[in-house]
Amino acid sequence: MTNTAQQNDLANAIRSLSMDAVEKANSGHPGLPMGCADIATVLFTKVMKFDPADSKWADRDRFVLSAGHGSMLLYSALYLLGYEDMTIEEVKNFRQLGSKTAGHPEYGFAEGIETTTGPLGQGIGNAVGMAIAEAKLAAEFGADIVDHYTWCLAGDGCLMEGISQEAIALAGHLKLNKLVVIWDNNNITIDGAVSNADSTDQVARFQASGWNTIEIDGHDQAAIEKALLDAKKSDKPTMIAAKTTIGFGAPKKAGTNKVHGSPLGAEELAGAKEALGITYPAFEVPAETLEAWRAAGRRSQNVRGEWLSRLGASAHKAEFERRMAGQLPAGFADAMNDYKRQLSTDKPKVASRKASQMALEIINAIVPETQGGSADLTGSNLTNTKETLPFQADNYSGRYMMYGIREHAMAAAMNGIALHGGLIPYGGTFMCFTDYARPAIRLSALMHQRVVYVMTHDSIGLGEDGPTHQPVEHMSAMRAIPNLLVFRPADAVETAECWQLALEADSMPSILALSRQNLPTVRTEHTAENLSAKGAYTLVGPADADAVIFATGSEVAIAVEAQKELTEKGVSARVVSVPSMELFNKQSDAYKAEVLGSAKVRVAVEAGIEMSWNKLLGDKGKFVGMNSFGASGKIDDLYAHFGITSDAVVEAVTSQL
Amino acid sequence: MTNTAQQNDLANAIRSLSMDAVEKANSGHPGLPMGCADIATVLFTKVMKFDPADSKWADRDRFVLSAGHGSMLLYSALYLLGYEDMTIEEVKNFRQLGSKTAGHPEYGFAEGIETTTGPLGQGIGNAVGMAIAEAKLAAEFGADIVDHYTWCLAGDGCLMEGISQEAIALAGHLKLNKLVVIWDNNNITIDGAVSNADSTDQVARFQASGWNTIEIDGHDQAAIEKALLDAKKSDKPTMIAAKTTIGFGAPKKAGTNKVHGSPLGAEELAGAKEALGITYPAFEVPAETLEAWRAAGRRSQNVRGEWLSRLGASAHKAEFERRMAGQLPAGFADAMNDYKRQLSTDKPKVASRKASQMALEIINAIVPETQGGSADLTGSNLTNTKETLPFQADNYSGRYMMYGIREHAMAAAMNGIALHGGLIPYGGTFMCFTDYARPAIRLSALMHQRVVYVMTHDSIGLGEDGPTHQPVEHMSAMRAIPNLLVFRPADAVETAECWQLALEADSMPSILALSRQNLPTVRTEHTAENLSAKGAYTLVGPADADAVIFATGSEVAIAVEAQKELTEKGVSARVVSVPSMELFNKQSDAYKAEVLGSAKVRVAVEAGIEMSWNKLLGDKGKFVGMNSFGASGKIDDLYAHFGITSDAVVEAVTSQL
Repeated sequence: MTNTAQQNDLANAIRSLSMDAVEKANSGHPGLPMGCADIATVLFTKVMKFDPADSKWADRDRFVLSAGHGSMLLYSALYLLGYEDMTIEEVKNFRQLGSKTAGHPEYGFAEGIETTTGPLGQGIGNAVGMAIAEAKLAAEFGADIVDHYTWCLAGDGCLMEGISQEAIALAGHLKLNKLVVIWDNNNITIDGAVSNADSTDQVARFQASGWNTIEIDGHDQAAIEKALLDAKKSDKPTMIAAKTTIGFGAPKKAGTNKVHGSPLGAEELAGAKEALGITYPAFEVPAETLEAWRAAGRRSQNVRGEWLSRLGASAHKAEFERRMAGQLPAGFADAMNDYKRQLSTDKPKVASRKASQMALEIINAIVPETQGGSADLTGSNLTNTKETLPFQADNYSGRYMMYGIREHAMAAAMNGIALHGGLIPYGGTFMCFTDYARPAIRLSALMHQRVVYVMTHDSIGLGEDGPTHQPVEHMSAMRAIPNLLVFRPADAVETAECWQLALEADSMPSILALSRQNLPTVRTEHTAENLSAKGAYTLVGPADADAVIFATGSEVAIAVEAQKELTEKGVSARVVSVPSMELFNKQSDAYKAEVLGSAKVRVAVEAGIEMSWNKLLGDKGKFVGMNSFGASGKIDDLYAHFGITSDAVVEAVTSQL
Repeated sequence: MTNTAQQNDLANAIRSLSMDAVEKANSGHPGLPMGCADIATVLFTKVMKFDPADSKWADRDRFVLSAGHGSMLLYSALYLLGYEDMTIEEVKNFRQLGSKTAGHPEYGFAEGIETTTGPLGQGIGNAVGMAIAEAKLAAEFGADIVDHYTWCLAGDGCLMEGISQEAIALAGHLKLNKLVVIWDNNNITIDGAVSNADSTDQVARFQASGWNTIEIDGHDQAAIEKALLDAKKSDKPTMIAAKTTIGFGAPKKAGTNKVHGSPLGAEELAGAKEALGITYPAFEVPAETLEAWRAAGRRSQNVRGEWLSRLGASAHKAEFERRMAGQLPAGFADAMNDYKRQLSTDKPKVASRKASQMALEIINAIVPETQGGSADLTGSNLTNTKETLPFQADNYSGRYMMYGIREHAMAAAMNGIALHGGLIPYGGTFMCFTDYARPAIRLSALMHQRVVYVMTHDSIGLGEDGPTHQPVEHMSAMRAIPNLLVFRPADAVETAECWQLALEADSMPSILALSRQNLPTVRTEHTAENLSAKGAYTLVGPADADAVIFATGSEVAIAVEAQKELTEKGVSARVVSVPSMELFNKQSDAYKAEVLGSAKVRVAVEAGIEMSWNKLLGDKGKFVGMNSFGASGKIDDLYAHFGITSDAVVEAVTSQL
């Protein structure tokens, strides 16, 4: 080890704060901050470009702590660098309710936290998305406005998770050379030695995925600095394998799993401080060391000033600022309304996936920030339009991501793209494979990110591919996730409305559940109002009907047919289309009562399970839908076999009268 | 190409049947069966050990079609080999409702289908599990009883999915040398060339994960045979990279994505048959070719006869047959009852995760077929017992899988272990990470496999790790999956009961949702009856109570406390513990009515979202639980912050009276 005394002091400030905070909370993970303190010191004080005075500076480097359990590394650094909201009090309140210093880094809690991490591997996917966004925006706005790096610190757990392979293969293929992943190679996982469960040659694995690799001693700050600077010069993404000692400095527990996720204990903590030469009291970093960190925090101020000058002189300024602010272009709402009017006139009978593509043709032409894509189902998801040339290694100006058969990394990368700002990501796969992407979809919701999931083939209407590909429980399972808009539009008009709502919901992700099969236009009279915005509304039938039939998506036409049959039988019924339960739940009590009406009978029809409908149905309502997995067969055979028909809806109504 | 005429005839029989079936169905995937026909011919007619006369022969080689969309490859082969239930009529009914020949292979539909595949990458995970089971049982029963290979055919999609990395890293680490993955290296995915989305050096990647690799021309049957036989000799798992042409033989579409997932069309089909030299009518394989296939199907009959003799002479016969039949040992139920009696006397106050470990100490001692494990959270999940020495490359007799940080592959491998037979797999992670394993959990349910998921830290009771690690929607999201038992036991007694039910449910997977925090014993009076078997039952309070309070898991004690407070206030209340909604739903109407009772007021309390409770709560019931993501903090602070307290339950009751 050749670190200077000052280098050690800087790193030990991270170690000291981290040990102290975990000890005070009596909960947390000291091992990573102690082990990666040298890496963080070099990265934050010498290499990364950022300015605590403007934590949202668009051209800052991004740092992703994929190994989110090591949150004290980040909190310590943010405090030391001078981010104003990261006070020493916050550090002392580590892991307490209401603090900015949650157990894992939570996006939006404090300046400088670029993403929420903790579920392992997600951060690598986010970092890939951030690097994609950087490359795309640099191609669009020029390197004088957009030119920064994405740095990701990952542990063994991140690399064992499957999502990491999806993410690194995508990054390697796209030659995202401004992405650097630093692997905290400490040989330890929660259960003990990595060798208990893994023998992967990680360096060879990254090379196989098209990465540049560098191997270093993660405690040698000169070597770290050289590696980080060399990584910046590569024409590929770089993985730096940094050999570290987990819990570096702890006399008995360093290098073991005992220091991963538990406080050191008073004796071991004292021993660690002694071994490291830390003589100051808990939470009291010496003024000299603190000032060295603060000076490092200020070192990119001039760079930011120059950047601001360039931006000020740029013809792109207004557009760039609009994009980074996440505001939609003027005229968007009007264009969507014009398009809706045309649809109500044309009355197309198309699948809602096709209607989605038609809507996207309008959207992509006037919203340049959409960044589309699909997990290798473009022709099925219909996520492409004439604007969407592919984003490829040799052309970063493309607006379409060929994500490959990587649903999980697609979702995590879309989170990264959204977090970066300047782009609105949307991406497609089959609705059934929301399961593959679910951990990242949950994080879209938790982080309030505008990510649009275009999930086609949304029921047994998928047909012959059978139960493995037919969503049954997925509508309910998606509706279960907090802060997620789940749309299932009934026709081309509702599809356009739902797309508009998804893009306007700037702090929520959306799922668009779309049919494979053709659907008639049921919204044949144009309304300037976006009726889907209310979540549920009366489509047809008198306000005082005896029965109300709730339906979504492809089953709305079935409900309308049933309503006709009932009318012929002399039964007064009303059809309520429910494109989004979440939006309906936000309406006023008066509006809800109006939609529910005075009907004696309630029926809901959806080609999925009942669970999410029980609240609307109440004690006596009947459900027409699925109560098992699906089957392989022709679509008409399946709807008949599972009893999702207008006859079944009629029977469900009349049996209650 | 050096194939003989007969070799070509054999392979063309697969191609012909597959083309014809897809064409007749006007739906399906001809590309893989045409491209992999040579591989399948050699594998099935020369290398694999199996006997169509006994498709469940315990020592057969297993074949997993991970690229399940190529199902006609398998159906063609099963018909040609002489599996009796795979008639030509079934082949003609490909993809029709009620046929055995579903769009993707469905386990249980026909003999010789070893697993359900289609969701990409799952089959590789299943195959790893099957190879684990083989190694474990060989160590236990000897190579004269258990000595077979697992063969897996995977496509580019399987290898792009993250689960594949988890699975191959696990297999490489464990040196599962009787596992062979054949990669259908055809350069094509649905969206076009693999090079649109991937540049991975797959051979180098597998080598980095500890695999033997072989590269061949996938249309040269001699080379295929040599590779398969060489793979059998390796001391590592083997990946055979077989260069193929998708849709081999199709004059215009071969080698393109046009032949992946659509019928050829009449003209292209005719052209393909002409190019391949297929002169016979659709579905009519010439007698000579069919007999050659059938003879190959019979070629292991002697080997099976010798195996039967060895088994008949073995001291292990009865135990081996019990294990393969999936029957629990005699005395299991009695032992669990004795243990329950002791618990009701001892009244331990332990976390249900600890109670699970205590139950496992009893179970593992008398049920030798349990194969435990954890995704690197052993000390948190408490899935280990004194019986569970690790299963490692140098000791396959171990009963504990160190799965690594690979929740998805753990679940898929457990499916493979269960499908293999002879073992009952259980494995742990945090309840929140059911999301990571969800696609494989769904397949456990779809395949009716006895897999036990030990999911600890099941609520905000997890505490300081915060919202990324706190399940909120997960109880409802798990309950949404058909054919899955979701248990949330209230104390050590219920935990024992739920474990017993999970093991006795031999055609369903189970989730055990278990607390991090300590829970008092609420079942202080022993019952020989397994009360949890009814799904819900009255724990305390009079049958004619004015209020009924439903609760699960850690909230049962809160409900009991509330019941006491209500009694003191003069309000008559009854607490119903609901360890499993699924089992309650199966009870008689009379029993359900008894449990619901005549109470005017219904309240449910669970530290999760409301969705799955609405059916029980009805129009007027109130829910005490979560309606947002959680937070990082001390457990008591969190329960108070989110209002999940006995006071809140009391208020929910009294506000309705």
